Order: sequence, then C-alpha cells, then structure tokens
Amino acid sequence: MPLRSDWSTRPCTIARGIDVVGDPWVLLILREAFAGASRFEEFASRTGITDKALSARLRTMVESGLLERSTAGDGARPRAEYRLTESGAATLPILHAFALWADEHGPEPRPGRLGINCVACGARAEAADVCVSCGRRLTPDNVRWTRPGEWDGAQVELVGAAIPAN
Amino acid sequence: MPLRSDWSTRPCTIARGIDVVGDPWVLLILREAFAGASRFEEFASRTGITDKALSARLRTMVESGLLERSTAGDGARPRAEYRLTESGAATLPILHAFALWADEHGPEPRPGRLGINCVACGARAEAADVCVSCGRRLTPDNVRWTRPGEWDGAQVELVGAAIPAN
Repeated sequence: MPLRSDWSTRPCTIARGIDVVGDPWVLLILREAFAGASRFEEFASRTGITDKALSARLRTMVESGLLERSTAGDGARPRAEYRLTESGAATLPILHAFALWADEHGPEPRPGRLGINCVACGARAEAADVCVSCGRRLTPDNVRWTRPGEWDGAQVELVGAAIPAN
Repeated sequence: MPLRSDWSTRPCTIARGIDVVGDPWVLLILREAFAGASRFEEFASRTGITDKALSARLRTMVESGLLERSTAGDGARPRAEYRLTESGAATLPILHAFALWADEHGPEPRPGRLGINCVACGARAEAADVCVSCGRRLTPDNVRWTRPGEWDGAQVELVGAAIPAN
C-alpha cells in the first residue's frame, strides 16, 4: 500500500499484514463493509473520512484485493459498489482483536462499546477469531455486532465475502 | 494519539483500539518489544524507522500507557529503556491477527513467515489469542516466535509486561 513505506516484501508476516490492512482508515472502511456498507457515500458518512482520503483507500483496497468493485444501477446512472472479497472478509479477527483490547485497555472515558456475539451459541466473544464458549469460528456468518453511539445499539448480522470460497 | 484524527472518544471500541494501537510503526515497535528490544537503538535498527518517527512513537506509546519508560545505567550515562506495560502486553492478539491474515492472504511473493507456537503444547497458532489445540491463552509467557528474514529462523521466547498484573 503506497500510503507509506512499502512493507509488502518484508519477510515478517506481521509487517506484510500491516502493509495491506494496518491503516486506520482501511480498518474503519472494513468495519463498515462488514456492517453492510457498499457505496461511497455510505463509507463516507459512517466513518467521517474525507472524500479524497476515501477515494485513495478504496482504490488501494481494490488493488490489494480486500474489496471488489462492481457497477450497479441502470446504464444512465451507474453506481460503484464495493464488497468484501474472501481476503477482505478474513480480516474480521483483526478488527475483533482491536475491539477486545480496547474493551480492557482503551482510552478513558468509555462512551460505548461494540458488542460481539457468536450467533451459534449467543456467547459474547472473548477471543478474536474463535468462540471460547462453543468453539465455532467467528467468521462473518457467525457473528452479530451490537453497535454503540450513533448506531444506538443496532444489532447487525455481518456481511461476508461477495464471492464465497470454493 | 495525535498522529491523525483523534478517535479516542469514539463510542466504537474498534475505533478506540485503532486510536492507540492502529499505527503501522506502533505495531512494529510492539513486535520488537515482545521480541526483547528495550532501547531506542534496538527499536530503530530492528524496524528501519527514522529517529524522528521513533521518538514521536515512543513518546505517544508512553503517554497512552503501552510502554513504560525507565532509566538504567550509571549516573554519568543514564540510558532510557522502554518496556511493555500490562496494557501493551495485551496487544499480542492484534499482532497475531495480522500475521495469521497475512499467512493466508498477504502480498505475494512470500519471502518468509513468522512462526507462532503455543509453548504449552507446541502447536502452531491457528487463532490470534487462544491455542486451538490445547485451549491455553496465547499470552506472551505462552508464545514462542520463529522469526524469518534477517533473524534467520531465530526462536524467541516473548517478553511480557514489566510489571505483572495483580
């Protein structure tokens, strides 16, 4: 990702992961894609990013394979839509790891929290990618978020990859 | 963290976590702290960060409570040391989530990978914070990394919080 030093060829997998996903706005755009956003205006209004920064991020996220761009609407007014790829959908544990860390150690005061629950057993997530209660993977089709703040406790069934894995 | 928009008061825990930890250099500095670095020169040489950027990051990481700064050495030549706090040590699943994602979906070609193993049972980590084989938490005292690239497969027992939790 050309927003800073290129770490895409570093031998360490932590660095290579950060290279693609470790940008604050990329992480928030992924959050909104999981929560159902697909259009430019949706990502903009739900994250507070500027149009210029959002354009740059969506372009690099399509290039790096996190999002797939398609065109919807009639011929006269085509509309770009951005949906998670399999690779993008696999970033969910990264977002969960940030949320779980902030639950315990994030900045005070705490005006809210994201609820993360396993759909299969209902338990609150206590680990980033596996339900500690029932052992199921916390993949998008098995996670429900309860969103704080402006979302006012809305429950969201997550959206996964547009094209399911084989 | 004043390096960009302040998200420290966002209701969403993902955003508040990103506010403190979601900076590429902060994540690499944490990686090296887990691997045993404590001095400015160690962080600089092991990450490739500039002195100016490293100074800024270390300052904000102390302010946000990820690192604890102390002074070692004799009176004539005191030396600053930076060690993980309990809050800093709790970021380990975030680093692991990036590594596990990049194992499957990171940029090609793949010049190496970070090995992550549970010390208790020896199994390779398949989840960010819990050993899927034995169920033990992958806290710093229960994780061994095998480092690629310039580290040439070195095995590292991780360093946890300088001051253990009560």
